[in-house]
Amino acid sequence: MPSACLIVIGNEILSGRTQDKNIAWLARELNEIGVRLMEVRVIPDVTQTIVDTVNEVRAKFTYVFTTGGIGPTHDDITTNAIAKAFGVKLVRNQEAEAILQRHYGGKTLNAPRLKMAEIPADASLILNPVSAAPGFCMENVYVMAGVPSIMQAMFASIKHTLKGGAKMLSRTISAYVTEGNIAEELTAIQNRNPDVEIGSYPFFQERLGTSLVVRATDAAKLDAAYHQLKTMLLGHTQDVSEEDLAA
Amino acid sequence: MPSACLIVIGNEILSGRTQDKNIAWLARELNEIGVRLMEVRVIPDVTQTIVDTVNEVRAKFTYVFTTGGIGPTHDDITTNAIAKAFGVKLVRNQEAEAILQRHYGGKTLNAPRLKMAEIPADASLILNPVSAAPGFCMENVYVMAGVPSIMQAMFASIKHTLKGGAKMLSRTISAYVTEGNIAEELTAIQNRNPDVEIGSYPFFQERLGTSLVVRATDAAKLDAAYHQLKTMLLGHTQDVSEEDLAA
Repeated sequence: MPSACLIVIGNEILSGRTQDKNIAWLARELNEIGVRLMEVRVIPDVTQTIVDTVNEVRAKFTYVFTTGGIGPTHDDITTNAIAKAFGVKLVRNQEAEAILQRHYGGKTLNAPRLKMAEIPADASLILNPVSAAPGFCMENVYVMAGVPSIMQAMFASIKHTLKGGAKMLSRTISAYVTEGNIAEELTAIQNRNPDVEIGSYPFFQERLGTSLVVRATDAAKLDAAYHQLKTMLLGHTQDVSEEDLAA
Repeated sequence: MPSACLIVIGNEILSGRTQDKNIAWLARELNEIGVRLMEVRVIPDVTQTIVDTVNEVRAKFTYVFTTGGIGPTHDDITTNAIAKAFGVKLVRNQEAEAILQRHYGGKTLNAPRLKMAEIPADASLILNPVSAAPGFCMENVYVMAGVPSIMQAMFASIKHTLKGGAKMLSRTISAYVTEGNIAEELTAIQNRNPDVEIGSYPFFQERLGTSLVVRATDAAKLDAAYHQLKTMLLGHTQDVSEEDLAA
């Protein structure tokens, strides 16, 4: 299955000022097209850290997505760092400049805004229907805005160009049993179903319980494991639900 | 300033099933004691990935915190992976076993629960006042639960043992001006205040605006930069607020 790594670039996430909303959203979008998010890195606005991280992960994963740091201000250093990572120069992208000209009009297209049209040579643009300033793609690296609404609109414009594999399917079952009481049976079911990934998540909803998530690309194998889990849980309690009570 | 890296271990974050709540919480707690969160990695429940990641980052940062994967079920592989990373064996920790005995009573302390008393040799325990099963610390690596309420209680029990530096202070000012219109003045203020970190975050609250966050360890330098920003913003609009409208 094609793999992906997300690099979240921004001091505001690492300082705790901003609650990240991009990881879970992108993970679910990638699931839908059969690309598996295998790693996330949250890194600060430091050029060398961005360069090193991008160069490490673009060799490891099918796709790399970055969010953050492509605006007009002094702390927006991602575009320059990506050019460094690929060893290419920034050039004034004519298409990006035309987009910004249309959005801002000639008068307000000052130097900081024009900076957003400086894109690594040979990059292709990722359109931004929300606030015009585009992201871009260099080889397998997709550079997007950090603001969730803009990131989401950018991803929507490139989603159809990504090549996914078999879609990861999932089902969840919950019961008012504790993990420790079902752990041995759970291990046995996992061992009998090697092509299915079983995750166990405790929850507390008035009482302690456990949600079991099964994931697989094969629907028949998924269902088989699911029914083994259901039978096992019903051996402990009738209080079984198809909801994800731990989510 | 002492640095930290958080490793979030769990397929449930990478699948988008679970919205992470540990990054921002831990970041703010570390800020309070003068430790700076410099990187976060979200990685899957894969032993070799955990081993490699822990060994890479424990050499780079003052403190490493991990969350997730220390429960009784088959997918809880963090403890074993940490032992591998340090090249030590798991041993039955007498103190952990006594804690679990008290919590569960003799009858229900089955093999999966006893697994939670198998801790790397020479590790010290991190107490868990919520659900008994402890985390542990090996050198500069702190291994904690993934459930936010448990992680938070565990961190509270070790917070006083961490050695912080000067606390990072911050102030925020917001105004209904766009980033592009203030970017050049902002760069000039950043250049005049090299010991202060200025972050610029656009927001849309009925109208477009920008929140500016200043951070520094020196209160006088922080205030000086803050007042330069305020004067600059008031040159554009009277609509200035001390709230963080982009948060």
